[in-house]
Amino acid sequence: MIIDLNRKMMESNDTVAADNRQKFRQHQVKVINLLGSPGAGKTSFLEATLAALTRNYKVGVIEGDLATALDAERIAKLGVPVVQINTKGGCHLDGAMIREVLSQFDLASLELLVIENVGNLVCPSTFDLGEDHKVVVLSVAEGGDKPVKYPRTFLEASAVIINKIDLLPFTDVDLEALKNDLLSINPNLELFPVSCREKQGLTPWYEWLQAQLKLPGEEPGSHGL
Amino acid sequence: MIIDLNRKMMESNDTVAADNRQKFRQHQVKVINLLGSPGAGKTSFLEATLAALTRNYKVGVIEGDLATALDAERIAKLGVPVVQINTKGGCHLDGAMIREVLSQFDLASLELLVIENVGNLVCPSTFDLGEDHKVVVLSVAEGGDKPVKYPRTFLEASAVIINKIDLLPFTDVDLEALKNDLLSINPNLELFPVSCREKQGLTPWYEWLQAQLKLPGEEPGSHGL
Repeated sequence: MIIDLNRKMMESNDTVAADNRQKFRQHQVKVINLLGSPGAGKTSFLEATLAALTRNYKVGVIEGDLATALDAERIAKLGVPVVQINTKGGCHLDGAMIREVLSQFDLASLELLVIENVGNLVCPSTFDLGEDHKVVVLSVAEGGDKPVKYPRTFLEASAVIINKIDLLPFTDVDLEALKNDLLSINPNLELFPVSCREKQGLTPWYEWLQAQLKLPGEEPGSHGL
Repeated sequence: MIIDLNRKMMESNDTVAADNRQKFRQHQVKVINLLGSPGAGKTSFLEATLAALTRNYKVGVIEGDLATALDAERIAKLGVPVVQINTKGGCHLDGAMIREVLSQFDLASLELLVIENVGNLVCPSTFDLGEDHKVVVLSVAEGGDKPVKYPRTFLEASAVIINKIDLLPFTDVDLEALKNDLLSINPNLELFPVSCREKQGLTPWYEWLQAQLKLPGEEPGSHGL
């Protein structure tokens, strides 16, 4: 019975997520669902991305957190429209939570919406929000065995940001082995080793994201970054 | 309806956890439920603890993971009886999973059972397993804002292992501020800043754990470590 109910919940979520996706497409807004463990560096990565992107693109942000508005306050400082969802202890965002806050954005004016999910490498990956891409932020300080131990999140993703590479010399992580493990789980992953703290390695990510934002028929890079 | 079902699930878990707890007390086994984010260093911390403890205490381990037996294999190398629970993607251990594997231990011969939960700072804290203490492993590489962002796990805990302090110089974390934040959430927390990699700061933790293992009427330290 519990399993049946879970299946019904997931079906219902898929329906809401499909509605969200239709709305995003109607307004030509690309949507990124940003996932990762607590402390992987999702907000710092988002800050770096927004600093580069908002010169040429109109971006909105939804911040998912259990209890605080700390991350939303950090994003608001960048002058980006941001809405906070507090899950009141809940371990993931779902399609209905996103639907509920969409009216707070002028979707027609946005080109990109980034949803920073609750810090959790397990639950959020099973709830479609209507996004175009799941992007996982993984810190090398978490150790090299995370992809094989938490495969589903990486299976569902389009890209993995391998963050905090400035800490690599102080860890036992072999970056090439980590990349191979990620690609053995999901050969289609785009991998971006970066240090948000040291502002290293971010350009290839900006270029990938820019390519996703290209409208049909538009030349790549016509917006610039 | 969903909320009612969740409540029933939690009530049922509490009943099973109470049965587990009764069984542990009957056999005078102390039980630690070890929590933390993916990559906080739970298994490394457990390895260090077992290396020190198993000279004088009989310890068993239950390893909770989504998909692999990697951690159980690390623990088995130390000659400690270990049982792996694979949650098949599930985000936490529950009382019934623990009950199911208890027959694989000779509980009467054990003094301590350590349950390493799934790497997740959200869900596991809401499922009682029958443990005496929840102990959270928190890596400083996760950043200093984790206690206020994920308060429930810290509210439920008896002790927090502030791990990877060898990385402190390469982070923005203020250790004293982090300790204050933890104590403002839960003034009863025991805090142990350690580096499992550098084998720093572990003695106060061993001493605290040893005090928990003392039998009624036994002098503290009579076992030694």
